[in-house]
Parts: sequence; C-alpha cells; structure tokens
Amino acid sequence: MTAPMGTDNVRIAVLGAGSWGTVFANIIADAADLARERHPEAPAVEVVLWGRRASVVEAVNRTSQNPDYFPGIDLNPRLTATDDAAKALSDADVVVLAVPSQTLRGNLVEWRPHLREDAVIVSLMKGVELGTLSRVSQIIAEVLEFPEERVAVVSGPNLAREIAERQPATAVVACPHEETAVRLQSLFKSAYFRPYTSTDLVGVEIGGAMKNVIGLAVGMAEGMGFGDNTKASLITRGLAETTRLAVALGADEHTLSGLAGMGDLVATCSSPLSRNRTFGEKLGAGQTLEQVIAETKQTAEGVKSSESILELGWRHGVDLPITEAVVKMLHHDLSPAEALTAFMARSSKPERYGV
Amino acid sequence: MTAPMGTDNVRIAVLGAGSWGTVFANIIADAADLARERHPEAPAVEVVLWGRRASVVEAVNRTSQNPDYFPGIDLNPRLTATDDAAKALSDADVVVLAVPSQTLRGNLVEWRPHLREDAVIVSLMKGVELGTLSRVSQIIAEVLEFPEERVAVVSGPNLAREIAERQPATAVVACPHEETAVRLQSLFKSAYFRPYTSTDLVGVEIGGAMKNVIGLAVGMAEGMGFGDNTKASLITRGLAETTRLAVALGADEHTLSGLAGMGDLVATCSSPLSRNRTFGEKLGAGQTLEQVIAETKQTAEGVKSSESILELGWRHGVDLPITEAVVKMLHHDLSPAEALTAFMARSSKPERYGV
Repeated sequence: MTAPMGTDNVRIAVLGAGSWGTVFANIIADAADLARERHPEAPAVEVVLWGRRASVVEAVNRTSQNPDYFPGIDLNPRLTATDDAAKALSDADVVVLAVPSQTLRGNLVEWRPHLREDAVIVSLMKGVELGTLSRVSQIIAEVLEFPEERVAVVSGPNLAREIAERQPATAVVACPHEETAVRLQSLFKSAYFRPYTSTDLVGVEIGGAMKNVIGLAVGMAEGMGFGDNTKASLITRGLAETTRLAVALGADEHTLSGLAGMGDLVATCSSPLSRNRTFGEKLGAGQTLEQVIAETKQTAEGVKSSESILELGWRHGVDLPITEAVVKMLHHDLSPAEALTAFMARSSKPERYGV
Repeated sequence: MTAPMGTDNVRIAVLGAGSWGTVFANIIADAADLARERHPEAPAVEVVLWGRRASVVEAVNRTSQNPDYFPGIDLNPRLTATDDAAKALSDADVVVLAVPSQTLRGNLVEWRPHLREDAVIVSLMKGVELGTLSRVSQIIAEVLEFPEERVAVVSGPNLAREIAERQPATAVVACPHEETAVRLQSLFKSAYFRPYTSTDLVGVEIGGAMKNVIGLAVGMAEGMGFGDNTKASLITRGLAETTRLAVALGADEHTLSGLAGMGDLVATCSSPLSRNRTFGEKLGAGQTLEQVIAETKQTAEGVKSSESILELGWRHGVDLPITEAVVKMLHHDLSPAEALTAFMARSSKPERYGV
C-alpha cells in the first residue's frame, strides 16, 4: 500500500449522496478534524461527496446541509460536493461506494477510467446481485480487476439518521488484508463512530444482505400484530440461517454474532426508520406487493435480494426457511398467516439442528 | 427415568403464581389439550398451580383468570390452583419453579420433604445468587441433592403477557441429560409455544442471568435519549461479554447465539414490558437508584445480579466491561454519560478481540 494511507495527505471520494453516503462522508470529515485536534501532525484528509443531483450538491456546498435527507442537520463545513464523478475520482486515494446496487455495475464501468490504479475501494452497499448471485465486493473486484487487499466493506448497526445526529454508533471495517482494514479504521474513527476491524469480508457482506430479508419477515410479523417474543424468535432464527449460509460461503461464524451480523439485524428490526421493516409491516397488514410499492413509491432491498439469497442457499445446500417463506409470500401468494403456522408447526428439534 | 414422563398419567406442579408461573402452567394445560386432541391415547396431564396468596388461588379456581397479572385473559379451565404447597407437590412427577430467586433456598428446604424422590425439577428462574455465585440449577441440585438428569431449565424470548395472549413464542428446554429435555419438550409444546431442546444448562442459565444486566444498560441508553444504533451496539457487545463468561464456565458458545441468549436479550431490550429495561430507563433519565426503587416499589433482577455476575467474571478472568459499567453506575456514582464516553473512547480493536 502506498500513498493512500501513509503519512501524505489523503483524498477520499464518497460516491452517492443518498442518506448513508452523505452521513458517511460527514463521519470521515469529523474523524479528520478529531485526528488533527489530537495529533496536529496527522495527514490532512480531504473529503468530496459526489451526487447525481445538482440541487443536493449545491445545498451541501452552500449550506453544509443535505435537505433531501437531513433538513436542519449541519454537516461538517469542510465537506464539499460535486456532480462531476471524474473530478471526485481524480487523485482519490480512497473511493467509498454508496450507490443503488442495481446501478453499480454500470457506474463502475463508467468510472473506471477515472480511478487511480492504486485506489482503495470501500463498499457501503448491501445485497446479492440477481442472476450472478455476486456479493458487492465481488462485483467491484470483477469490474475493476482490483486485488482483494484494495476492496473493503463497512457494515454495522448504522441507521443513517441517528449518525447524522452524531449519536454513538459502531461498525465493522472488513478487508481480507488486515492492514487495509486497520488504516481505514483510523480514517473513519470519530468521536461518535467506532469502527472495529475484521478480515471476514464474506461474513460481513452476507450479514448485511440477509438482514434486509429478515427485516422484511419481522416487519410482516409486526404488521400481523405479533409482539416482541415472536419478533425476537424470528430475529434469532433469522440470524441462525444467515450464519449457516455465510459459513457455507466461507465466513467465520463469529462475524455473524458481531456488529455487522446481529448488530445490524437488531437495529434494522427495532427501528421505525428501517425501510425493509416498514415495507414488511404493510405486507403483514394485508397489502399486496404491488400496493406497497405503489404507496411507498419504491421497493425495499430485501424484496430484490430475497430470491438471489434463496438461490445461493440452494446452490450451497443450505436450508433457509425464513428466507423461503419471505420469497413465497412476496412472489407466490403464501399468506403471512400460513407462513407463520408452518413455522410454528415444524417438528420438534434440538436448537442446534442444522448448524 | 420412570413414571414421570412415560405412558402413565403425568402430574405437574407449578410453584409460583406470579406472571410467568401462571402463564407457564397455562402453556402446559394447553399443550396437554393439544396432545390429547392429536393423540387420544396420550397420557393425561394434570397441572396444579401453587400460589402464596389465597385471593389469586381462588380467582384461578373460580374464574380461570389471574386478575393480578392478566385481567380479562382466560386461562385453560383445566388449570387448578392451591395455596397448599404440600398438596401441590404430593405425587408431582414434574415440579416447575417460578418463585423469587432470593427466597428459593428457603422454599426448597421447606418443600423438600413433600417432593417425590424421582421428581424432575424445572427452573423458570434467572439470576446468580449473591455470595455463593451459584446458578439456580446449582442451588436446586445442592439443596435437594438431585442428580443432574432431573434438573432442567426453560428460558427464551418469553415476555409473559404476550404468551398469556397465546401469541407465538419459542424457548429452550435444557438439561444435561438429553432424554429429560426431550420429554419435557413434549409436555410443554403447545400450538403457540415451541420449545427446542439443549443439553447446555450453563449457557442457558448464564444467558438468562446476564440479559437482565444488559437490559438495564440498554434501558439507561434509552433513558439518555440514544437511538437504535447505540442500543443495537450495546446488545451486540453485551451478548459478546455474556458469551465470554458462559464459555469460561463451560457453556457452548452457540447457546448464546440462540433463543435463550440472543433471543431473550433482544426481546427484553425491545419491550416496554421488560422490568429491567424500564428500570434502566429511569436511571438513564437521571433518577438515582433509591428514587427508582421508591417509585417502582421494587428492584429489578439485574440490579441484584450485576454484582454477582461481575464477581463471577473476576473469578474466571473474564472482562465484562458493560456489566462493570452497570455496577459502577448503580453502586459507585459513575454517571451514565461518563460510562458511555468510556465505552466509545476505548482503543481501536479488531472485533474479535477477547473472544
């Protein structure tokens, strides 16, 4: 690893000015201020946020706010924005990706000529690609032809609004190459954001993708009027099937007991801010998929990922009963009540069955 | 194992007509009805609930309700109650204990002469005894001089009110002797209550005891105004320290990722019905321990257990930072804000540090 995270100044581009991209850029700017306050000799860090929409870019530059997502919340004044991706990428040592996963491949092809050859790529994204069943880091490595020591992911219990308000939060920075993870950790550690390192990219990514599906299931239970026991059981058994799948793909099971597995899942399933949970809630209350999409004017990540994840399970011989029930409810007319009855009526088992 | 759970009729005594004892007796009666409906040749199960207070006993017998805890909810009409412990225990094949943990030793000494020598004892109780640092099953085995194949525990995400309403829930029945766990499972499995078996008594009991302490910590964070990221981080790191302690005491770490570990913890930390969480919330909002006890007219189990658990950690060389912070806040004037700052400012670590 060269300039990106040595003693020279560091330039970081965050691509995607949605809620999480905006907040993550702000974390980095706050982290840099803190580092310089504590160690005046620390390298200077410059952060630029790329957004597609000129109005957001202008608001960030002029008012240090992103009114589309966080009206009234002041971002770090050193954070600048641009709608010119080539400009954001030129000379960026670290490139953080926070774009919709369906558009990622296309974006990467377009951005590739502007990327530094030695840049480190950090994904904030969650999902499994339809068709290819690729994780986000696999798409990145494939399209950019980058080695594994320069592709990392960040994931954890990170509801964007709370971090925008600078409430305490934790996350995992994962890269198979530990040195990369440690250096990114130092760039992202602010007074309110505490990243831990991990080398288990697979575990962190599968945890992130599955939590959207389990979040949908928990939302459905909520929408059906069930209480905290039912939801806690679904969360627990949901994490068990997440762990089974992740381990089959080569992950360390402990990652799933950590912040990017259990932590992210618990935050998603507890919060009224979670899109997947809210989406599931409407389904559980009896709306059809089409009605919910029409009403919310968007779909939820878990709706798209659930089929890819189920297919990934089949391919690796892993039983994913909750994911399967979600897919059947979304796409094959299984009613939530039938799914729940099936779940409760399965034959009696030891708890460790299938682990 | 002889008569208790063979083909003969089964008599079960539930000692303690508080919220969980009442609901558990009701689960058993409902389970028995379901078993006879499905298999008319199944052994008949008789359930008797012992309560100290004559008014509760009379209400259960006369109206099939427990108005102190669940006014308006109908219990199984086959459930009877008595305030005579000797009568409840005579001929009981299975004895379920749901009394306050501080009075357990005294109760057991008093009840011992009335117990059948081959009875199976099931604890629904959670905590670690002050002074001796014994788990509940250890107290039972010690006072009654029962072998391990006849002492079991039940634990899981089981907020009593929801199960009284017959909402779906799951739990773990643990006994080192698997055959006992399997037979109890068949006695407790109703249409809405799904028990899984486990042989890891230590893991199940430590999970149950620690969740009260972590629930207090999460309540404090809530009372301080923090959101779901902070709480999810506390829950995740809290389960990590629970797992470290349990493993040091001989548990299987997977038990803590299961219903009696993660499941129970998540339900407790999510629910406004949880006493420990509510208690912590008042502390986090700035009340003193004395003020909260005066206002709620009771203390929370986690307040009592936290010191024993911390001592257990010291004795086994296990670092329990959240438990330690809770003890300091409760008994040594550490403010919640100082505790949180200390938690966030610790040096950067890999996530798996100390596991």
